[in-house]
Amino acid sequence: MLKLYGFAVSNYFNMVKHVLLYKGVEFEEVTVFPGQDPKYLSKSPVGKVPCIETERGALCETSVILDYLEARYPDKPLMPEDAWQQAKVREVMKIAELYLELSGRKLFPQALMGKALPEPMKVETREVMQKACAALAELCSFTPYAMGTEMTLADIALRYSLVAAEISAQTVYAWDLAADVPGMKTWQAMMADSEISQQLDHASQEMMPAFMEYLQQRA
Amino acid sequence: MLKLYGFAVSNYFNMVKHVLLYKGVEFEEVTVFPGQDPKYLSKSPVGKVPCIETERGALCETSVILDYLEARYPDKPLMPEDAWQQAKVREVMKIAELYLELSGRKLFPQALMGKALPEPMKVETREVMQKACAALAELCSFTPYAMGTEMTLADIALRYSLVAAEISAQTVYAWDLAADVPGMKTWQAMMADSEISQQLDHASQEMMPAFMEYLQQRA
Repeated sequence: MLKLYGFAVSNYFNMVKHVLLYKGVEFEEVTVFPGQDPKYLSKSPVGKVPCIETERGALCETSVILDYLEARYPDKPLMPEDAWQQAKVREVMKIAELYLELSGRKLFPQALMGKALPEPMKVETREVMQKACAALAELCSFTPYAMGTEMTLADIALRYSLVAAEISAQTVYAWDLAADVPGMKTWQAMMADSEISQQLDHASQEMMPAFMEYLQQRA
Repeated sequence: MLKLYGFAVSNYFNMVKHVLLYKGVEFEEVTVFPGQDPKYLSKSPVGKVPCIETERGALCETSVILDYLEARYPDKPLMPEDAWQQAKVREVMKIAELYLELSGRKLFPQALMGKALPEPMKVETREVMQKACAALAELCSFTPYAMGTEMTLADIALRYSLVAAEISAQTVYAWDLAADVPGMKTWQAMMADSEISQQLDHASQEMMPAFMEYLQQRA
C-alpha cells in the first residue's frame, strides 16, 4: 500500500494527502518531521517532507508527487485534458509555491517565533508576494474553482500554499493578502467547506503543539 | 510562430532554448531582462524570464514551459514513457532547481558583486547544496545520461542549474561541487560537447558584459 510520509501541519503534506483522499487512493500515513534521520534520507534524499513510497520506490517533492498521482490514478481527474490548460494549472501552482508559500515561509522566524527580520528583506518579500497576488488575479477565474468550472490541482495547491502566506502576511505586515485577489475569499470559503479540507485542518490544529515544540527545539 | 522571451545569460532561458533547438521547434527570440516593464508583465505576471508566447497565449515558469513543450512537441522525446520514470526525471529537475540553482543564486551578491554575505546564511546554503549533491549521487546514474541511456529533460535542467551553483560554490566556498557527485564531471563534459550547448554557452558569454551592466545599475 502507498505510504505517505510527513506531518499534518505541513502544507505540502496536506496537498498530497488532500489529493489522495479526493481520489480515494488507499494509503498509510507515517508521521515524520523534516530532519536528517538517515533512514528517512534514503527515501527523501534532501530530507524534506512529504515523500511517498510506492511499489516502485520512494518519490519526493510535492509538485512531482502530485503529477505522478495524477498519471497513476487518473480517475476523478484533477487536471484538464488539454495540454495548454494543464500548463496554465501548473503555472498557477508554481506561482503559489515559489512566490506565496516560500515567501510566507521566509517570514516564519518573525511570524511564528517572534524574531525580528531585516527590514530590506521584509520589503523585498512583500513585493514578491504582491506580484504573486497580481499574477493570481490575472490567471485565476474562481468560477467557482481557480481555473474554471472544475476543481484542479491548482485549487488544492493554492489552498495550502495560502496558509503560510496568510499567517506571515497578517503577522508581519498586518496585510490581508487574500482580499487583494478578486474572488479569492469566496473561493477560500468554498474550499474550506469540503469534508476533506475540514479533516485536514482539524488534524493540523491537533498536531500544532507538537510542531511548535519541534521548532523551539531546533531554534 | 512561438516566441521565447528572456536573455542568453539566464540559465532558465537556456533550458527552454536548448529544448526548442533540440526538438527543432521554430521560434523567435526576444531579448528581455527581468524587470517590471508593464508590457512584459502582461505576458509573465511575476516579471520573470523566460516566458513563451504561443497561439494560445503566454506561459511562464521554466518547469511549466518544459512540461508543456514536451506535450506539444512529442517528437524527439525528452521524457521516458513510463509515469514512474517521468516522476524520477521531474524529481531530479526539482532538486536541481530548488537546492542547486536557487542556492547558487542566493550567493550571487557575493559571488558576482563582491558583497559579503552573513556567515550563518552561507553555512546554511552550503548545507543545502551538499544535500542536493548527495541526492543527485543517489538518483542519477550518468550512464551516460543523468537518468540512464537516453537524454531527458533532467540532463538539460541539471546542466544549466549547475552554472549558478558552480560559480557560487567556487567563489564563495572554493568548493568544486561537481567533483562530489560520482560521474557528474564526465557527464558535464559530454553535455558541453553538444553543438547546442556550445551555441548557448557562446551566446551567454557574448551577453555577459551587458548583463553585468544591468546588474550594476540595479544594485
